[in-house]
Order: sequence, then structure tokens, then C-alpha cells
Amino acid sequence: MTRLHDPSAHTFASDNYAGAHPEVLQALVDASGGHVGSYGADPYTARLREVVVEQFGEGAELDPVLTGTGANVAALQALVPRWGAVVCATTAHVYTDEGGAPERLGGIKLLTVPTPDGKLTPELIDRQAFGWGDQQRPQPLAVTITQSTELGTVYTPDEIRAVTDHAHALGMRVHLDGARLANAAAALGLPLRALTRDAGVDSVSLGGTKNGLVLGESVVTFSEEARAGLVYLRKMDAQLVSKMRFVSAQFLAMLEGDLWRRSAASANARAVRLAAGLADLPGVTITQSVDANAVFVVLPREVVEPLRAAHHFYDWDRQTGEVRLMCSFDTTDEHVDRFVDDARALLT
Amino acid sequence: MTRLHDPSAHTFASDNYAGAHPEVLQALVDASGGHVGSYGADPYTARLREVVVEQFGEGAELDPVLTGTGANVAALQALVPRWGAVVCATTAHVYTDEGGAPERLGGIKLLTVPTPDGKLTPELIDRQAFGWGDQQRPQPLAVTITQSTELGTVYTPDEIRAVTDHAHALGMRVHLDGARLANAAAALGLPLRALTRDAGVDSVSLGGTKNGLVLGESVVTFSEEARAGLVYLRKMDAQLVSKMRFVSAQFLAMLEGDLWRRSAASANARAVRLAAGLADLPGVTITQSVDANAVFVVLPREVVEPLRAAHHFYDWDRQTGEVRLMCSFDTTDEHVDRFVDDARALLT
Amino acid sequence: MTRLHDPSAHTFASDNYAGAHPEVLQALVDASGGHVGSYGADPYTARLREVVVEQFGEGAELDPVLTGTGANVAALQALVPRWGAVVCATTAHVYTDEGGAPERLGGIKLLTVPTPDGKLTPELIDRQAFGWGDQQRPQPLAVTITQSTELGTVYTPDEIRAVTDHAHALGMRVHLDGARLANAAAALGLPLRALTRDAGVDSVSLGGTKNGLVLGESVVTFSEEARAGLVYLRKMDAQLVSKMRFVSAQFLAMLEGDLWRRSAASANARAVRLAAGLADLPGVTITQSVDANAVFVVLPREVVEPLRAAHHFYDWDRQTGEVRLMCSFDTTDEHVDRFVDDARALLT
Amino acid sequence: MTRLHDPSAHTFASDNYAGAHPEVLQALVDASGGHVGSYGADPYTARLREVVVEQFGEGAELDPVLTGTGANVAALQALVPRWGAVVCATTAHVYTDEGGAPERLGGIKLLTVPTPDGKLTPELIDRQAFGWGDQQRPQPLAVTITQSTELGTVYTPDEIRAVTDHAHALGMRVHLDGARLANAAAALGLPLRALTRDAGVDSVSLGGTKNGLVLGESVVTFSEEARAGLVYLRKMDAQLVSKMRFVSAQFLAMLEGDLWRRSAASANARAVRLAAGLADLPGVTITQSVDANAVFVVLPREVVEPLRAAHHFYDWDRQTGEVRLMCSFDTTDEHVDRFVDDARALLT
Repeated sequence: MTRLHDPSAHTFASDNYAGAHPEVLQALVDASGGHVGSYGADPYTARLREVVVEQFGEGAELDPVLTGTGANVAALQALVPRWGAVVCATTAHVYTDEGGAPERLGGIKLLTVPTPDGKLTPELIDRQAFGWGDQQRPQPLAVTITQSTELGTVYTPDEIRAVTDHAHALGMRVHLDGARLANAAAALGLPLRALTRDAGVDSVSLGGTKNGLVLGESVVTFSEEARAGLVYLRKMDAQLVSKMRFVSAQFLAMLEGDLWRRSAASANARAVRLAAGLADLPGVTITQSVDANAVFVVLPREVVEPLRAAHHFYDWDRQTGEVRLMCSFDTTDEHVDRFVDDARALLT
Repeated sequence: MTRLHDPSAHTFASDNYAGAHPEVLQALVDASGGHVGSYGADPYTARLREVVVEQFGEGAELDPVLTGTGANVAALQALVPRWGAVVCATTAHVYTDEGGAPERLGGIKLLTVPTPDGKLTPELIDRQAFGWGDQQRPQPLAVTITQSTELGTVYTPDEIRAVTDHAHALGMRVHLDGARLANAAAALGLPLRALTRDAGVDSVSLGGTKNGLVLGESVVTFSEEARAGLVYLRKMDAQLVSKMRFVSAQFLAMLEGDLWRRSAASANARAVRLAAGLADLPGVTITQSVDANAVFVVLPREVVEPLRAAHHFYDWDRQTGEVRLMCSFDTTDEHVDRFVDDARALLT
Repeated sequence: MTRLHDPSAHTFASDNYAGAHPEVLQALVDASGGHVGSYGADPYTARLREVVVEQFGEGAELDPVLTGTGANVAALQALVPRWGAVVCATTAHVYTDEGGAPERLGGIKLLTVPTPDGKLTPELIDRQAFGWGDQQRPQPLAVTITQSTELGTVYTPDEIRAVTDHAHALGMRVHLDGARLANAAAALGLPLRALTRDAGVDSVSLGGTKNGLVLGESVVTFSEEARAGLVYLRKMDAQLVSKMRFVSAQFLAMLEGDLWRRSAASANARAVRLAAGLADLPGVTITQSVDANAVFVVLPREVVEPLRAAHHFYDWDRQTGEVRLMCSFDTTDEHVDRFVDDARALLT
Repeated sequence: MTRLHDPSAHTFASDNYAGAHPEVLQALVDASGGHVGSYGADPYTARLREVVVEQFGEGAELDPVLTGTGANVAALQALVPRWGAVVCATTAHVYTDEGGAPERLGGIKLLTVPTPDGKLTPELIDRQAFGWGDQQRPQPLAVTITQSTELGTVYTPDEIRAVTDHAHALGMRVHLDGARLANAAAALGLPLRALTRDAGVDSVSLGGTKNGLVLGESVVTFSEEARAGLVYLRKMDAQLVSKMRFVSAQFLAMLEGDLWRRSAASANARAVRLAAGLADLPGVTITQSVDANAVFVVLPREVVEPLRAAHHFYDWDRQTGEVRLMCSFDTTDEHVDRFVDDARALLT
């Protein structure tokens, strides 16, 4: 196969426009060759189990899956029975960006709440957390939060704890969509468990692809209850990979050392630099707290298309002119500075 | 990440115990680096589209997915409406080995028919193909066949044509589960299209993993009708990969040249050698025609466990002592001869 | 069996607190005795087919089902393919009161839009009607409106036509949840077809239970396209009744003459009388246009519970003190006047 | 509405060709008039709860639903989690006659076993009861049996106990499809509980329609575990009737006294008389034990169509000429004798 793309190209479109981290690619090569057991009966998956305990503590388990949608669906199906509903933010990826898979594939009714910044709070949860015992209402039995959020904001451990305490007091479980959990943990300088298990979360969709894997997602659980039936659900949801060694090896590359943090911290730092560079330009408004690797910003309309042509990014709100700028593990200071320079040149 | 396994280990357990072909790993490395569009808007997926037309003719389209179960479910959902049912062999992978995903995730009722050798025929299809217009019967609107079959047998083009002509005359469509289509095509010395499009098949689950990919499956369709809604169904079924370049690049490595045929032909040749070596041993009965890369054989009970300890394989029918021996792209003559020698030593 | 209730009891809780109209009960008795074909092969269902053509015109078909949820789910499944999504008001019964059945049983993603009065308009539809071809977005392929709405308001034929013209121009179909269609038609003095077929609607959930049936709902369609697979979907959705003569006979009692209009007009007239009686009481605010058989009203908090104890009704918005008062086919002027008198006595 | 059928017509087609028992119709009339709570908050449903305890013992609960398919789906969904599969006979109504609703609406994989007479045994169950913990196999977590069976045979209490003891020892629950449970109980001269709760069954689809109701089915459970989420599942499955008083009143008419037994015993007695009359005719073979209200019989081909024209019945196996003759609560000795006389005249 011939290389067909320019490996120096960069965008601010999404962290999945990036390729894979070289250490991840090397892990694939190292894990190949010879025969090992399929469907998880291999030494890489076994080692990954140990690493997950090291990262998240005794009893933590990680089940590799293939897509973020698959991770969310399987995790939520394991958390609630057939009649359970799940409270989420109206901006939640699980509600807006998964083709209806949670409802249709997962059979999960989502109960949505508008938020200013992508974060749920006890008060916001209460807008949908009611009606237990009412046979006509889907029963609210779990909450799902996203960390870092779809708006680039980050929950502190205390904010998560407020959510989990409140939910648990109501008999609800808490799932965390951690497609970008690494970015949140890196931003706060905390281990992954501080934002999940230690904050009372029951299960996590732990992302890999947006943090530099070729492809690989996972569900991390902290109790037998949160993992009930998960391996069967994974198969039913078409998320069971036969040569699982290749997904596990990528997660090993990411989690065994500090690659997850290095990659996430680098992306975060670029977002901070980008926001700082843009903040003072005329007509530019940063609209959300830049807590992780995303910058939400309103740009004057006349500069949007010239900037997009050179740097590629997506609209967030066409009415207000808000756009989303994502930094990836491979975004460099030069990429950022070029964007800021181009914006400044267009604006002044 | 450290290598944790013995790259010289070999088994006859399954073609998914093997790793990835080195050319496939190299394609991953070449496709990485820099930014390209996600969800299929990348040059590898674009080039793959051309290659698919080269292989299958004008109008053929390939949509990458992640698991064989996902490929089968999405392909069948696209072929039949909500009320459609699908006729298959009782041995079909889609019925026995997919955790109920076709029924539960896909909403597809499977109507099964026993077969002697894993192959459907017009007569066998007729055992379930009836009841159109009967509001209480799931409507039989498609047939799915497996090539090569779960029993290691291979349909000839004429046998497939008999199925497709019959099905089409009844208003039914035909899907082919081609997890091992490459093995069938290599065995018959035919191009992939001779066994699919040219034989009247409407859509194909074209496998990659069992033919040497890291992970990657696909749905190949030959008409707009067979592809209706497929891209939405792929997302709904949690089969849409964000960094699609990495799945497409693997398929390019496999399909652009003759890697698919080299790998499959090699596995097939080992199976023939294995069957030939075993056929004359005392108490040994080859139970199915060795058309592709599987050998189904009844071994005397006393030799099964010693052989399994050294070579690993799976039981097929514990009552009769029938076992399944699978050869992979990386099975060598030495692996085969060692098995035959061990069997002979135990039996004589 | 002994009578266990007071047949003179009345409430303003819901039109399903009422019993059945005596003419409907007589129809059940008349339809019983002897053997007729099951699952619709009976003379009552045959006659109903003729009556539906009389009411809705050539090509109209009515398929009896058992619950309003079942009617909505089956009708929408027939209107859109597996990947279709349906735009509805956030107050729509299908979204708020059906236990998630549309999503979970029907596999239908609902795309919701807030409305001031329960009515969709072209502008409101446009808030969710976008993203065709975007593989990550459930495809908006239908709109569902409720007539009369969950807020007691009624679309005029022109308002419905605006919706259907807009939707059709976008390639979307239109379903009308007519659990209380009779009330709307009676209020406007129009035949049922003026608000459905003649206004461009593709299919209707035509309610019976809230208009005086024992139990019975139906799906009415005006084209082969809107009815695709409906009889199979009805069975799959557990809505096929074996002794269908008994549901069809009830609909005959309702539709063959003018019982549907008499019952609905009576309920509507009581609602108008009730609103008129309440409107001028101190501290009372009628919150929605009283177009059909419901009155939405804010009552001073101190009178709510005493009134509820005597007349039973449900809260609509606990924060504002808004309650919903429903009139039924058997609500009389005396029931209404007693309520108004009680309210006046408490308030003055 | 005008009567459109001949109330003296009789067939041997199905017990759902019959109308409703006059006592059932009277119960509908008595339950109507005035307002009572909807969705089960009415005195008829309350009284039915007491009657169910009288019939089945403390802790028994009955939840009314609308169709037999709905009863089976909801009962099985409550018995097994999302990943559960259910073992049944290949002849089971749930597998062959419900349009795929158990799989598609219920998300339940059915694992089928051929039987000679429609009855499962521990040995037959074992053919599908394996693979717990195998992530690729739908987990067999329940068994469903039909009483009386689709072949007109009846399990003795000991036969049911053998099934339930075996299933429970394997960690599986047992559901009984009792669409014709009354016929089985009447045939054995036993109370309903002897064949269900006292024999170890966990939940029952207790039929009403085939025993003389207008329409009405139910799920009866004997423990909190077997009823988990049932009221929510009933709504999700579109089986919650708003004017529940009307279904409950019919069940009261059937269960409060001995109507259920009178009707069933009458139908059974006619079947015995019919079989006795046919048994000695030349060329006639009774193929199944006539335990309840069905006669399965091979008739000489030349008499089938003349008899069918006069008495209407369905083929069971066109290859062997086996037909099914069903007796209903309203079948009389005269109906039976006329059939036998006609058969004799044609055959001799």
C-alpha cells in the first residue's frame, strides 16, 4: 500500500483527524506474530487487567470494545435494567452524536436536561429524576456525565462527587463518558481514578482513539453490579473483537506508562495557548472555559471561512458564529501560532 | 509495551488466533501521521472505493465496519425492512455465534434450515420460504449463505446462482457472509466477484480479520437497493470507526494486490495437506469435503487430548468426537507435518 | 361479577376515567355469538373497511390495534425506515407518556422541539429537520403532530396543511396522533378527513378509547406507502387482536353514524362552559386556548386540594400551579356547574 | 351497529373464532358507567387482585395485558436480563406464531428444541441449556413451556415439576404459556395453581380470550423476582390498557366463580367426543393424545376439503394430511356429531 496523504497536515477539526501515536503503532507490531487466544484469552489482555487494577484499584475491570458509541451503549445497558432510563445533558454525545444507537440498539430512553456548560449538577439532574414507580414513565435509574465535556469544560472531583452522591441517594447509578477522560485528568494533574472511582462513579467509557490509538475504546467498571452481563452485552452490541490482543496492546501502550498523560497534557497545553492567543483579538469571544483540549470561540463572520480553509474546524452554532477548535496529541506550538497569526492578520 | 507472547506459537484453533500479516501492519504505519478527515473522508477510504470497483465492477461499494457480527447485522438490516425475516442454515454463524445480535440488535428474525454440509439449496430454502402475506409470520425476504461455510465447504458459482435465482424469483434478496470468502475464491481459482456479484448475490459481509488483518470487516453491496440506509445503520449499530483510514488502509493492503489470495491460498493448501496426512491414519475419518482452510475430522477419543495439548483445536461435536482444525495464513507445512506426525505416533 | 363502583361518579381527571358509551357496549353484544374468522377475517372488520372509505375517501384503510402507544409505534414504523427519526413537540404524548416505547419497541429516534401551545409549525420543524446524509445523525424522515394537542389546542386545516406541505417538500412524511381527533373535528365542525387526508397527512393514529370505546385504537392510512408492512408491524408490536370483530364493532358503532361527533361535541361543549365559568373567578388564569375538551388553568394554590378532593384532576405544572381539567363524553352541565360553584365558593 | 353475522355458525378452526361468553359481556356492561381510575386504579382491578390470591395463593399477582404475544414478551423480559435467552419447543407459539415479537420487541433469543408431542423434558432442555459464561452464547436463563401444548397435549403436575426442578437447579427460571391453561386444569380436574405455582413455575401468561373473553390476557407471577419491572415492561410493550376496569372485569367474570372451568371442561369434553367419533373411521388416525380441547388427526385426503367446506379447520401438516380440530366453549355435542356424521358419510 502506498502512502496517500501528507503526514505534515494538521487541522483543528477533531482529535480523531490525528493518526496514531508511534508508541501505539509499535505496540501493534510487537503484539503481532504467532498465535494467541482470541476474544481476550491472550497475554496482552491479561496484562491489561493488571494495569487497570494499578490505575483504578482492586476490583476495577476493563473490557475492550471498538467504538465510543459501543462503549456507551454497553456500559449503560449493564447499569440499568430494560426499563431504566438515563439522565444526560442535551449536549451529551450519547444523545446527539450516536445515531440514536443508545435508544435503538441499547433500548435506553435518554432524559435530557439543558446545561450552560455541558455539566450536570444535582439541581439539573432533579429536572428529570422523578417518577419512580409511575408505570408510564421510563424509570430514571442512571445518570451519565461526560468528562471532559462536549463543551471542553472539566468537572472537578468535587463536582463529580456532588453528582454521584446525589444520584446514589436517589437509587441511581452514574456512568461517565470518558472519551476524553485523559484530557480532564491531565488538566487537573490527577490520576484517572480520582475523577472516576474515587469520585463515586460506577462505570466509565474510557476512550482511546481520541488520545492517540489507532482504534480502541473500553468500558471500565468498579463493581460486579456495574459489570453485570457486560461481556454478553458487548457481544450482542457487536463490540467483541476477535483478535483482542491488538486492542489490549494499544491500551497497554497508553496506560502502562504515562503516554495517556503526555498526549493529553500536550493537547491541553496547545488549547490554552490557542485561547490565550485569540482572547485579545478584536471581535473574538472565548465562550467556554478552556479546561481541556477544546476552544469554543465566536469569531467575526468574515474571518471564519478564510481561517477554515487553512486550518479546518467545525461550526458549533451557526447562528452565533461559534466554532470549535480541537487540539490533538500531535498539535504543536507552531500549529497554534500559525492559526493565531492568521486570525490576527485577518482581523487587524 | 513489552512483547508478552511467543511469536513462533501456532495452533489449529482458529484463523483469528493468528496475528496480522506484516504487509497489513506496514499499511497501518504508512497510513498514520498527520491529519486526514475522519469517518471516511480520507484518501485511503477514497482509494479503497476505486479498488472495490476494480475487484467487483462498477457500482460496487464497500463500507468498512468493525466486527463480523456488525457486518452481518448491518448488511441484513439494509436488505430487508423491519418486518423481514432471513432464511439461513442452522449452522450459520449469524444464528449460532453472534450472541443473538441479529435478532436483538438487528431486529431480524432468522428462519433456520438444517443442512448436511452447511450449504443451502433451493429445496432447503423452500422449507422456510413461505407465508408471504400471512400477518403472523415474519416475512421471508432474504437468504443468507456463508462462503466458505462454517463446515469448511465451498459453494461453486453454479450453486450460488441456483440459490440467488431461486430467491430472486421468490422476491427475496441474497446476502453472503464472506468472513472467509477469500478462502473460497482462492480454492476455486476465481476472482471475488465470480462468487458474489456475478453469481447474483446482493450484498456481502467481506471479512478481513480472518485473512490477516489486525481488525476490520466490511459490507460490499452491488446496488443502491442493497445499500439503502447502510451508512446510517452502520452508525446505529456502533460500527462506524472514527479514524477510518486505518481500517481502509488494511483493506487496501489486502485487496489492492494479491495479498488476499496469497494468504488464503496458503491456508487452504495447508488444510489439504493436513487432510491428506490424516486421511489414512487408523480410526480417522474426514467428515466434510476439505474445500477451503478447515478440516473436520473424527479422531479416536484417546488421541484427542494429547493432540489438543500440543496443537490446540476445538471440538465440533463431542458426541461423535468430531473436531475442527483450522489453518491460517501463517500455518506452514512444518506445522501441518508436526500435527500429522504426532497423530500418527499416537495412533500407531 | 358484581358491580363494584358508583356509576354516577364523575371526575375531570381524564377522558379515560369514563366508561364506555352504551351504544358501544351494545355493539359488543351484537357482534358476539357464533363463529367468525379471527384476526380480521370477519364481517365487522369488512364493514369497517367500507365505512372508513366513506369517511376518508378511496384508498383509506383502517387497521385496528389495542393501545394508543401501539398505534403510534406501528404507524411511525411503517412511515420511516429503520434509520428514520421523527420530529415531534416536546409535549407530544409519544415522547413523554409512552414509557419509551417508540424508541425501544419501535426503534425510532424522536427529535423534539419546544412549542408554546403544543403545535408544530414549519419554523419549529426546521429546528430539527436538517442533517440528511449526515451518517451520524438519525435521519429526520417524518413529523408527528397531535390533534387535538396535549395542551387542548386544535390545529386548523390550514395549520396542518402548512406542516404537511413543508414536511413533504423536505421529503418527510406526516403522522397525526389523533387520540382526540374526534374532539378537534367536532370543535371545527369538520369531517375527520378535512383534518387528515385533505390536509395532506399521511397516516393517523385514530383513537377510540378516549371517545367512548371500551378499548380500541387504530391506524388509518391513505396510501400504500404509508401502510408498508403495517400488518406485520402490528403483529410484531403485539397489537394484533385475535377476536378482531370486537374492536371493529366498536369502531363501527363510533364511525358508522355520528356517535363520534356527538360524544366529542358534548365533551367540547362542557370544556367551553367550564372555562367560561372559571375565567372570571379571582386568581384564576386560563392558560391555553380551550379548543377541544381540555381546560388548562392556573388556580390559586389554596383551592387546588379542596377542589381535587371533590372532582379529581391532575397537575400539569406544579411550579406554576397549572392544572388540567378534562371533559369526557359523559360530562354534563351539572358536573361542570358543580365544579365552578365549588371553585367560586372557595375563592370568594 | 347492525348484526352482520350468523350467531349460529360454528367451526373447528380455532377457539378464537368463538365470540365472548354471555357472562363476560354482562361483566363489561356492569363495569361501565361513571368514572373510575384508569391504568388499574379501579375497584375491578383491586378485586381481581384478591381473586388471584384466592386462586394462586399469597404473593401471586396478575397484571392484565392485551394480547398473548404481549403477555409472553413482557413475562419473559421480566424473567431474564437483556442477555438472557429462553429455551422452548420448536412448536412453541412464542417461536412460530408471534411474528418474531419475542426476538424483536422483546430482545429475547429463543433456543429451540424439537419435541415429539410439544412437551419439554429435562433431557430435551439440556440440548440447549449449556454455555453459561461463554460470552458468545446467548445465556440460557429461562425455559418456557406451553400448557396445554400447541399439540393439544397436557403436562401432568409431575411433568411440570420435573422441568422446574431441573431448570431451577441450572439457575434458570420457568415461564408457562397458559393461553389454554384452563383447558389443562379442567382436563386434570385440578386448580390452576396445581399446574403453575405448586409445580414450581415462576410466571404464567394466563389467557382469557381463548376461554371466552372479548379480549384480555394477563401475566401472573409468584414472586417479586419474577415480576421485576413488569409494570414498566407492560407499558414499553404497548400492553397497558387505559380503561383497565374492562379487562379486569372480564377476568373477574372468568376467575371469581367457576366460569373458567365450565367453559374449558365443555370444550375438552367435545374434543374427547370428537376423537372418539373419528377414531374408528377407516383411514383416520388420531396423532396426538387428546388431553384438552384439540384433536390432531390424519384424514384421508379426499375428505379433507368437503369437510373443511362445511366445518372449517386448519391444516397442521400438509405433507401427512394432518389437520387440527379445535373445540371452543360454545361447541356442542350437535356440532361434534354433525362433523363425525359428515366424515363417516364421506368415508364409507
